[in-house]
Amino acid sequence: MKILLDMMGGDNAPLAPLAGAAAAVKAYGVQVVGLGDEALLKKTAAEHDIPLDGIEFVNCTETIDMCDEPALAIRRKKDSTIVVGLNMLKDGGGDAFVSAGSTGALHVGTSLLVRTLAGVKRPALATVVPAKKHPYLLMDCGANVECRPEMLAAFGVMGTCYMQQVMHIESPAVALANNGAEESKGTPMLKEAHQLLKKTPGIRFTGNIEPRDVPNGDADVVVCDGFTGNVILKLSEGMAKMLLGMLKEIFLANLGGKMAYLLVKKGLGGLKKQMDADEYGGAPLLGAKQPVIKAHGSSKPKAIQNAIRQAKLCVDNDLCGKMQQALDTLEAEREKTASQSDAQ
Amino acid sequence: MKILLDMMGGDNAPLAPLAGAAAAVKAYGVQVVGLGDEALLKKTAAEHDIPLDGIEFVNCTETIDMCDEPALAIRRKKDSTIVVGLNMLKDGGGDAFVSAGSTGALHVGTSLLVRTLAGVKRPALATVVPAKKHPYLLMDCGANVECRPEMLAAFGVMGTCYMQQVMHIESPAVALANNGAEESKGTPMLKEAHQLLKKTPGIRFTGNIEPRDVPNGDADVVVCDGFTGNVILKLSEGMAKMLLGMLKEIFLANLGGKMAYLLVKKGLGGLKKQMDADEYGGAPLLGAKQPVIKAHGSSKPKAIQNAIRQAKLCVDNDLCGKMQQALDTLEAEREKTASQSDAQ
Repeated sequence: MKILLDMMGGDNAPLAPLAGAAAAVKAYGVQVVGLGDEALLKKTAAEHDIPLDGIEFVNCTETIDMCDEPALAIRRKKDSTIVVGLNMLKDGGGDAFVSAGSTGALHVGTSLLVRTLAGVKRPALATVVPAKKHPYLLMDCGANVECRPEMLAAFGVMGTCYMQQVMHIESPAVALANNGAEESKGTPMLKEAHQLLKKTPGIRFTGNIEPRDVPNGDADVVVCDGFTGNVILKLSEGMAKMLLGMLKEIFLANLGGKMAYLLVKKGLGGLKKQMDADEYGGAPLLGAKQPVIKAHGSSKPKAIQNAIRQAKLCVDNDLCGKMQQALDTLEAEREKTASQSDAQ
Repeated sequence: MKILLDMMGGDNAPLAPLAGAAAAVKAYGVQVVGLGDEALLKKTAAEHDIPLDGIEFVNCTETIDMCDEPALAIRRKKDSTIVVGLNMLKDGGGDAFVSAGSTGALHVGTSLLVRTLAGVKRPALATVVPAKKHPYLLMDCGANVECRPEMLAAFGVMGTCYMQQVMHIESPAVALANNGAEESKGTPMLKEAHQLLKKTPGIRFTGNIEPRDVPNGDADVVVCDGFTGNVILKLSEGMAKMLLGMLKEIFLANLGGKMAYLLVKKGLGGLKKQMDADEYGGAPLLGAKQPVIKAHGSSKPKAIQNAIRQAKLCVDNDLCGKMQQALDTLEAEREKTASQSDAQ
């Protein structure tokens, strides 16, 4: 299996992608095709003693920056790591693409170059978010700021597929993020989405989930529009950072605090690991024809390694193929309902 | 000054409102008019040795339950604590109304009975939310699920007034909750709201605030629609509850944890106090003609006492009068801009 990896994307490039790729080759036996400035990559690998077994490079002369306008960058920067990588994916030069670069460019590029599954207009960004009981899949968390009710129903189907194929959860609970448990709650769009999700075949819809219950991990898939998902994802990160930061201050405040820290260091380490998004890899762009994974911009080697592992699982389990089957079933069901109501 | 208090609203009624009222009378020298089942209130006060100096009762034979449909309940339950209290407020029988009862009924009842300031269609629910640097005012946090851009601009004006008059912050920073710092970010509604807020007179607009930065307390007033505000408020509560709960488990896990807890008990107490919304009272319904405060449904005596203190501050500083002046200035500015663009 060949995983295409953007070596120039993210805050810690190219060192983190290089080290993550080397670790992934060793751990999962994959081959990695690294896209980027070949001379720089070879020099960096040599300087840091990173073994290049199983890694080949494809030289790219351009990179897409965070400040580039996504659609324009995809059209103009033909030799950028994202454009070259996505084109190689489409043409069979690799089985999946991983990048910690610009989310916007990756999203637009995936839509334009890799294309979407039948029935999906634009891919959704799905993120595995740490929670108390177990992590949950949040989608969309930023790619589609505004959504129609049918899109949320499709997110339920795609999220279910992902949790089954990649996270090995047999019958994931799908919930709709809303400002109340009753089905009458929320905006008109959410009320309609609730009714659609109730009728969606092949998913286990458990109803609305209130924001206060989301961090418990009661649902396996939390469905929402990209604006709300972005708020949930970023506020969860912000709250965890603030509270753990304030806790750190308490432990550092005096000798008693420092002694206390030593006593609970192991437990706190476990908590930190459980809350660490890097453990779960990146955010898959679900609805793309082939696996595309967005790694966090601040990815360290471990996060890149986990994103490659995640890409491998998508390929191993034919995620995109199974997702197309599930979407086809949804579409057939819709046509059946439509023709029944026409007949009446 | 007379504060009207719903004695039957909230999970801990009537004991918490009774005890909170007695504490407020003692601490702030206000008079309290308690609305509810007079016989039950007198019996409960006697059983718990709660002094009734400064408290008078107005007997109400009905209460509005959480399951009642708000608009219907306001029309039908004429002798409920909320309807009687809001009518007394309107008719000069008290200076402010405090209730821990149904948010929906209080919102609808305030609009219908107390009415709104000129230029405000429906009041917004504003909540003081704990954060790292200092608490911030979040509005709307649930009353108006969908908002127009002009409403968000008015929230900026009303939130500024509240922070100046009640929290004594001279020049509060107003920010728009959005999924990116750039003004081009967000839904079309948010882009338009950003432009309006930039031009709004009498406020210090600092631009968009990303959800991850909200818990830092960088802004004094965070403006958003009621759906987004509800997500921010409830998710903040949920995340704090989850993380502090997991921390508690670590401290209780073994002898080392218990010793560690004793060493940092004081610091953790300070953290808990800082994160405790009860410290800041309730959520004012801003835009109402007279002060109406929604206390949290789970309010304990301290939260009721603080909500009464907050109501007193609104009255002392003529919050509603100053808010009307500020809204009039906003309206005059809008008319000036409109006539200028007509003239062009």
